[in-house]
Amino acid sequence: MKPLLLNADMGESFGPWVMGLDHEVMPHVDLANIACGFHASDPDVMRRTVRMAAEHSVGVGAHPAYPDLVGFGRRPMACSPAEIENLVLYQVGALTAICRAEGTEVRYVKPHGALYNDMASDPAVFSAVARAILALDPELPLMTLATRDTSSIRALALEHGINLWFEAFADRAYDHGGLLVSRANPGAVHRDHGTIIEQARRIASGQPLTTIDGSDLLLTADTLCVHGDNEESIASVRAIRQMLNTLYGRA
Amino acid sequence: MKPLLLNADMGESFGPWVMGLDHEVMPHVDLANIACGFHASDPDVMRRTVRMAAEHSVGVGAHPAYPDLVGFGRRPMACSPAEIENLVLYQVGALTAICRAEGTEVRYVKPHGALYNDMASDPAVFSAVARAILALDPELPLMTLATRDTSSIRALALEHGINLWFEAFADRAYDHGGLLVSRANPGAVHRDHGTIIEQARRIASGQPLTTIDGSDLLLTADTLCVHGDNEESIASVRAIRQMLNTLYGRA
Amino acid sequence: MKPLLLNADMGESFGPWVMGLDHEVMPHVDLANIACGFHASDPDVMRRTVRMAAEHSVGVGAHPAYPDLVGFGRRPMACSPAEIENLVLYQVGALTAICRAEGTEVRYVKPHGALYNDMASDPAVFSAVARAILALDPELPLMTLATRDTSSIRALALEHGINLWFEAFADRAYDHGGLLVSRANPGAVHRDHGTIIEQARRIASGQPLTTIDGSDLLLTADTLCVHGDNEESIASVRAIRQMLNTLYGRA
Amino acid sequence: MKPLLLNADMGESFGPWVMGLDHEVMPHVDLANIACGFHASDPDVMRRTVRMAAEHSVGVGAHPAYPDLVGFGRRPMACSPAEIENLVLYQVGALTAICRAEGTEVRYVKPHGALYNDMASDPAVFSAVARAILALDPELPLMTLATRDTSSIRALALEHGINLWFEAFADRAYDHGGLLVSRANPGAVHRDHGTIIEQARRIASGQPLTTIDGSDLLLTADTLCVHGDNEESIASVRAIRQMLNTLYGRA
Repeated sequence: MKPLLLNADMGESFGPWVMGLDHEVMPHVDLANIACGFHASDPDVMRRTVRMAAEHSVGVGAHPAYPDLVGFGRRPMACSPAEIENLVLYQVGALTAICRAEGTEVRYVKPHGALYNDMASDPAVFSAVARAILALDPELPLMTLATRDTSSIRALALEHGINLWFEAFADRAYDHGGLLVSRANPGAVHRDHGTIIEQARRIASGQPLTTIDGSDLLLTADTLCVHGDNEESIASVRAIRQMLNTLYGRA
Repeated sequence: MKPLLLNADMGESFGPWVMGLDHEVMPHVDLANIACGFHASDPDVMRRTVRMAAEHSVGVGAHPAYPDLVGFGRRPMACSPAEIENLVLYQVGALTAICRAEGTEVRYVKPHGALYNDMASDPAVFSAVARAILALDPELPLMTLATRDTSSIRALALEHGINLWFEAFADRAYDHGGLLVSRANPGAVHRDHGTIIEQARRIASGQPLTTIDGSDLLLTADTLCVHGDNEESIASVRAIRQMLNTLYGRA
Repeated sequence: MKPLLLNADMGESFGPWVMGLDHEVMPHVDLANIACGFHASDPDVMRRTVRMAAEHSVGVGAHPAYPDLVGFGRRPMACSPAEIENLVLYQVGALTAICRAEGTEVRYVKPHGALYNDMASDPAVFSAVARAILALDPELPLMTLATRDTSSIRALALEHGINLWFEAFADRAYDHGGLLVSRANPGAVHRDHGTIIEQARRIASGQPLTTIDGSDLLLTADTLCVHGDNEESIASVRAIRQMLNTLYGRA
Repeated sequence: MKPLLLNADMGESFGPWVMGLDHEVMPHVDLANIACGFHASDPDVMRRTVRMAAEHSVGVGAHPAYPDLVGFGRRPMACSPAEIENLVLYQVGALTAICRAEGTEVRYVKPHGALYNDMASDPAVFSAVARAILALDPELPLMTLATRDTSSIRALALEHGINLWFEAFADRAYDHGGLLVSRANPGAVHRDHGTIIEQARRIASGQPLTTIDGSDLLLTADTLCVHGDNEESIASVRAIRQMLNTLYGRA
C-alpha cells in the first residue's frame, strides 16, 4: 500500500497580514502547496515558507492562481489559455528560484482556487496548465481532485504526457457523483473530529467513504489535503497523521 | 579587442499598453534586458519578448525592479536588503521559467531604475542583489554602470564572488567624476546623431570620451546600452551597429 | 430633436504608459468617460484628464471597472453584487474628489468592459451598480447600450429609481437582435469612413440603421460612443461632429 | 478643558486577510482612521468599517498612504508632491463615497505610515497633502504628531489655510526633543499598563509627561492614538476610556 501523503496550502500570508498556522502544520505534512504571489504570498513570505518546508523535509509544491489578490484567487476569471499557461510558468518559476536559494526544489504543481476548479472542468484550462508543466519539467506531477471517475482527466494527462497526483479531502462531504459538496450547502464541511479521521482512514486504506446521500464512494488518492487554518484543524492534522502512522506501522 | 555588446531594455509593455519598438530594436542588439513584472511587463509580454529574443539569438537578461508598477520602478523605495534579495530571486526565477519554455535561458541580471542606482551607491543593496545571484547561479553576470573608478564595486563583487558586466551609454553625457549627468540638467542627453555615434566609437575602441566639462574620461565597458523608444533612437542603434561592424571588420 | 451627445473613453493611460489621443479627441466630444484606476488610469492621469475635460467644458463620467489592470477590465470576473456595489462606489468617489480639485464634477457613470457587458445581461449586476449610484446621487445617469428592445433594462432602472442614458455605436455592426456583433466575427467593426458617418447620421436623426443581416434597426440613443485610439478614429470623430453640426444647424 | 479624543487605525484588513480587532476597539474610540486601499483595505473592508463607525457614532477619518500594499505603506517612497496631492485626493474621495453610502462623511485626514512621517519632516510633502485637503474641503482637519515645538508645522498650516489636529501616544516613549523614540530602540514602546494609563492621563489633563531621558515634555494634543491590535491593547483602550470618563466627570 502506497502511503497517503498529507498536503496543505501554506505561505498564504501577504505583506503584514498573517494567514494560517504554518509553523504548527508544517511538522505534520509531507507536501506544502506554497502560494506564488498572485492570490497570496510575496517574495519574503515565499522565502520563509520554503525555508520552513526544507527544514522539515516537506516537499514544496507550486500553488499558482489567477491574478486576483483581493479575491484570493477564488473568483473565476476569463483568462485565455495562453494567459493561463504564462501565468503558471511565471509563478512556478518564481517559486523555483526561491527554492534554489533554500537548497530545495519545486516537486509538483497544484493550481489554486478558481484555477483549480476551472482546470478540472475545462479541458482548455487543463491543457494550458499542462503545457506550462511540460515546458518546465515533464516529470512534475499536477495535483487535481480525486473523483469517482477520473478517466477523462487521466486521458487528458496521458495525451499531454504529464503525471497526475489525485487528492482527496477528509473534512469535506462528497456527493453521489464523487465531487465535493459546495460549501454553500449544509453538511458540506465535516465538523466532527471522528468523522474526519474515519474518512481519512478509509481514503488511506482503499475503502469507500460515505457520500452525503449515503452511497459508497471509492476514491483513489495519492494525497489528502489538510488545513492549518486554526487550532481545531491542526488537531485534526495531528490525529490524521497518528492514524496514518498506525495504519502504516510507523513509530 | 573584445567586442562591445549592445543591450536594450525590452518587454516593457504591460497588459494592453505598449512601450518601446521591441520588434525594431531586437535585430540589432546582443542583449535584451527583459522586465519581470514588477515595474513593467506581465507573463504574456515576457513570453513574447523572450521568444523574439530567442529568434534573433539575443541573450536574455533579467531586469528586476522595485515593486512599483505605476512609478515604473523609478522611485527610490526603502526596501530592506532581505526584501531586495527576495524580490530579485522572484523576478529572475519567473523569467527563467519563461525562458525555459522558449528554449533559452537567463544569461545575466541588470537591475532596473531606482534599484540599479541604489545598487551602485549602497553596498547593502549591492550585497542583496549579489546574494540573489549567488543563490541562483554564481556565473550569472551582474550589469552595472561603468564609471571612472570602478575599484569599489569590483572589490564588492570579488568579495561576493560574482561577475560584473560594465555598461556605458552613447547618448548620455558624463560628468567629470565619470557618472551620468542627471537628466534634470541641460545637456544630459545627446540629441546629435554624430555625437552619439562618436561616443559609441570611442567606448568601443578604448578611447576616452569627452565629459560635459570637457575633460577626458576613459570607460572600460563590456556593453553599451541603446534604446528602442522611438524611430530616432532606432536609427542610432542601426548606426552604432554599423560602426561596430566596421570597427570589428564584420560584414 | 434632442442632440446626440458624443462620448469617448479617456484617461486610459497608466503610469508611464500612454493610451489614446486624449488631447485630439477631447475638443470634439461632449462627454469623457474617465477610467478610475481599476482597469486603467492612476491619480495623476485622472487629474490631467479631468483638467482637460474641464478646459473643454466636456462632461466628466466615471468609468469604473472590475479590478483587473493587466486584463484592462475586459475579462469577466465573478465579483459578487456587494463587491460590485462597493467597487463602483470606490471608483466614482475617487474621481469625484479629483473633479472637485479641478472645479468640476462627475455627471454620469458608464461601467467599463466586462462590467458594462455583465450589467446589461445580469440584473444582479445592474442592481449592484444602481445601488452605488443611488447612494451617491440618484440623479446621476447610468450609461448603457441602446438595443432594439430596452424595455427590461428600463423597467429595472425604474424599479431602482435611476436614470439611463443609452449609447449607440457608429463604427460597430449590429445584429438582428439589436446587439453589437462580437469583434470576433468578420464585419463587426466598420472600417469604411462613409459607412461610419452614415450610421451616425441615422442614429442622430432617428432613422433606422442597417444590421449585419440587412434588416432595419431603430435605436433610441442619447449618446454616441466615439474613439480616440488613432488618427483614423480621430478623423471619424471630426467628421461625425461636423455632420451633427450640420444636422442641428450649428455654426 | 477640551476633551481628548481617542483615535485608532481601522479597516486595515485586506481581501481575505484580517488585521486588528476593529469590533472590539470601535465602541471605545471617538475617531476611526480608515485605510483607503493603498496600504490596506479594499472597497468591501472600507464599507464594513465605515458602517461600524457610523453605528457607534465614531467620526470617520481618511487614512491615505503611499501605493505600497505589500509594504503596508511603511516604506518611504520618492513620490513627487504632485503625485502625493493626487493620491491623497483619490483615496479621500473613495472613502467619501463609501461614507455617503452609509450616511456619514469623512471628518478629517490622517496620512499613514511613511507618508505621515514624511509630511512632518518635509514641507513639500506637507504642502501636497494640504493642497489635496484644500481642494476637497478647507474645514477638514489634518492630523499630525504633537511634538515639543509645533510652531513650524502650525505656520505651514496657517499659510495653507488648513486646520491641524495634534495627536499624542500613550504607549510610546518620547525623546527629549518631543519626538517618538524609534521602535528600533529599547524602551520605545510602553508595555506596562500603569505607565500607559498615566501617560494618557497627563496628556489629557495638560500635565507634562516624562521622556525617555527623564525630562518633562508638555504636549498639546487634540487626540490620543490607541490601538486595537490585540487583547492587551484593547484592555489599555478600555482603561484609558474609563480614566477619561472619570477625568471629565462622565458617567
